[in-house]
Amino acid sequence: MKYDTNQLEINKVQKSKIEEVNFENLVFGEIFTDHMFVCDYENGQWQTPKITPYGPIQLDPSAKVFHYGQAVFEGMKAYKDDEDQIWLFRPEENYKRINKSSARLAIPEFPKDYFFQGLEELLKLDKDWIKKGFGNSLYIRPFVIATEECVSANPATKYKFMIICSPAQAYYSGEVRVQFSEKYSRAADGGVGAAKAAGNYAAQFYPTNLAKEAGFQQIIWTDANTHDYLEEAGTMNIFFRIGDKLITAPTSDRILDGVTRKCVIDLAKDMNIEVEIRRVPVSEIVEAARKGELKEIFGSGTATVINPIAGFGYKDEKFELPKMKDSYGKSFKDRLMKIQYNQAEDKHGWRYQVK
Amino acid sequence: MKYDTNQLEINKVQKSKIEEVNFENLVFGEIFTDHMFVCDYENGQWQTPKITPYGPIQLDPSAKVFHYGQAVFEGMKAYKDDEDQIWLFRPEENYKRINKSSARLAIPEFPKDYFFQGLEELLKLDKDWIKKGFGNSLYIRPFVIATEECVSANPATKYKFMIICSPAQAYYSGEVRVQFSEKYSRAADGGVGAAKAAGNYAAQFYPTNLAKEAGFQQIIWTDANTHDYLEEAGTMNIFFRIGDKLITAPTSDRILDGVTRKCVIDLAKDMNIEVEIRRVPVSEIVEAARKGELKEIFGSGTATVINPIAGFGYKDEKFELPKMKDSYGKSFKDRLMKIQYNQAEDKHGWRYQVK
Repeated sequence: MKYDTNQLEINKVQKSKIEEVNFENLVFGEIFTDHMFVCDYENGQWQTPKITPYGPIQLDPSAKVFHYGQAVFEGMKAYKDDEDQIWLFRPEENYKRINKSSARLAIPEFPKDYFFQGLEELLKLDKDWIKKGFGNSLYIRPFVIATEECVSANPATKYKFMIICSPAQAYYSGEVRVQFSEKYSRAADGGVGAAKAAGNYAAQFYPTNLAKEAGFQQIIWTDANTHDYLEEAGTMNIFFRIGDKLITAPTSDRILDGVTRKCVIDLAKDMNIEVEIRRVPVSEIVEAARKGELKEIFGSGTATVINPIAGFGYKDEKFELPKMKDSYGKSFKDRLMKIQYNQAEDKHGWRYQVK
Repeated sequence: MKYDTNQLEINKVQKSKIEEVNFENLVFGEIFTDHMFVCDYENGQWQTPKITPYGPIQLDPSAKVFHYGQAVFEGMKAYKDDEDQIWLFRPEENYKRINKSSARLAIPEFPKDYFFQGLEELLKLDKDWIKKGFGNSLYIRPFVIATEECVSANPATKYKFMIICSPAQAYYSGEVRVQFSEKYSRAADGGVGAAKAAGNYAAQFYPTNLAKEAGFQQIIWTDANTHDYLEEAGTMNIFFRIGDKLITAPTSDRILDGVTRKCVIDLAKDMNIEVEIRRVPVSEIVEAARKGELKEIFGSGTATVINPIAGFGYKDEKFELPKMKDSYGKSFKDRLMKIQYNQAEDKHGWRYQVK
């Protein structure tokens, strides 16, 4: 199938709603920019891609996304530097991953040219929504939903690929304490845990509510078979620092191959920090915490970049982590953000300019 | 919270579209009746329930159902007997189960009175869509979707509860051969497998496509930990007959507590058929097949009632099942359907008349 990128149709808003937005007081994911990107799949191929004013979509109540969760998404960010240049961060990784997620959910692959052309044109149209300043960004949400009007439980013949964008401030979620899961699970071996599949997220809501009632903000999921190994936090991959060594779980069909996770591993190598990518026994982390050797736990993900963890709970015990002066997490966050905001050398070639 | 059932608002279609429908040639789940039931949740409570003409719904592209799969559903059927009386089958079970599914997905419970009043009024309005004749039915799809306009990954504050109905003929899917899963999984211990959660279904599409390429129509899922035990087929629970004994897996947090499954177990008891509810080792079924002791495999579910399995594949081997004259599956199907269509005594009190 050949796709012609000269086809993109652009229908601009008559009047921007940007003046109604208080950029000093943004709640994550609630405000969207003036435009959105939409491309429908039907008759076995992706149709003419369009940029239109942001607004509601109409779907039949029988659309398969409502019944069978055939939906995947990505999370990305755009940044503006001091010269008003717009940057993306490793967008190729997100493009590849949304198609990998789609394949696992039996959704047709989206053409690369459509993705990049649509994304970049959208960002250029809505460039005023990307605010300068370290920590400000435009959160970008590409997603695909099954729209076929039929409740039989098999892959849809119609889809909608969309990109919507939401202005975001530096994400500070307060002190985060996590619970190590003992009972509930996020993903099965041979399941869809490695995909950014919509259903993976709703499945975490109830156990997370229980964790919140117990005084934690998030859960670190353990393997479903034994609950003996720490995996990921559902919206973040997780790193543990024991002494001066960094440990993180390997990716698998249960664990998302996080872009920020990969960067942290590369940065650690640049900084001569030893990184072990291997299964992480709960017992090892608990023991290290008891001995005072567990220095840090932090999450990595697009929304938060690096999210330091202040403490954790396991069974009936709670552990507090020390406040490190030479925090690895802080150092990674600083280095990553400086690359993202075009304030530091980009030796890995992670930045991508939107021109 | 008290809910007033005098509130139901009914807005009828001006002209029914029933005359456009060819009831002799229905594809499952493609045609919907004239009306639908809708009730929105916001501000912490379910709002006025409504019956409206069937038609598209408008949602913001950021609606959480699209991104996080926060959605559950049920499957039910209505039947018409020779006297034009309308019957449901154990609707209380579906009502209880949708709320159980909702609880696991952090969706607020739906009030019982709203459910039954909405369902029954809808069926009475669209009663001409329920065709007489053994095997004809109206497939009923209650579902709940998260509609809040926000892409932060936590439970929504807004939902839509809907019921849509689709006329169905006797479901004959041809000879069904199943593959025993060796690699892919449907559900994790501690996951959402026991819920009719939307995401559980899309997760099965890709492995099922692979099974189809290998010459099978469906997969019987095995436990994610070892793949040594047979669990369910994703849209059906599964029964095995070895000699004169029936075996089925116990319900768990991975296996759906199927209404038809429960009926089969009760009917087997009525018929003095021995039923063992226990883990079903793949090795036991394969060995029984080799010895000629495996007489039947069949699936149970609302859509198909009882779906006989003609053969199965495991690893590189394929097994054909004998054609039984005294088929248990056929007998259960006949007994169940006669109860459903008000043609036989209903000693368990499973029928429910819509008046």
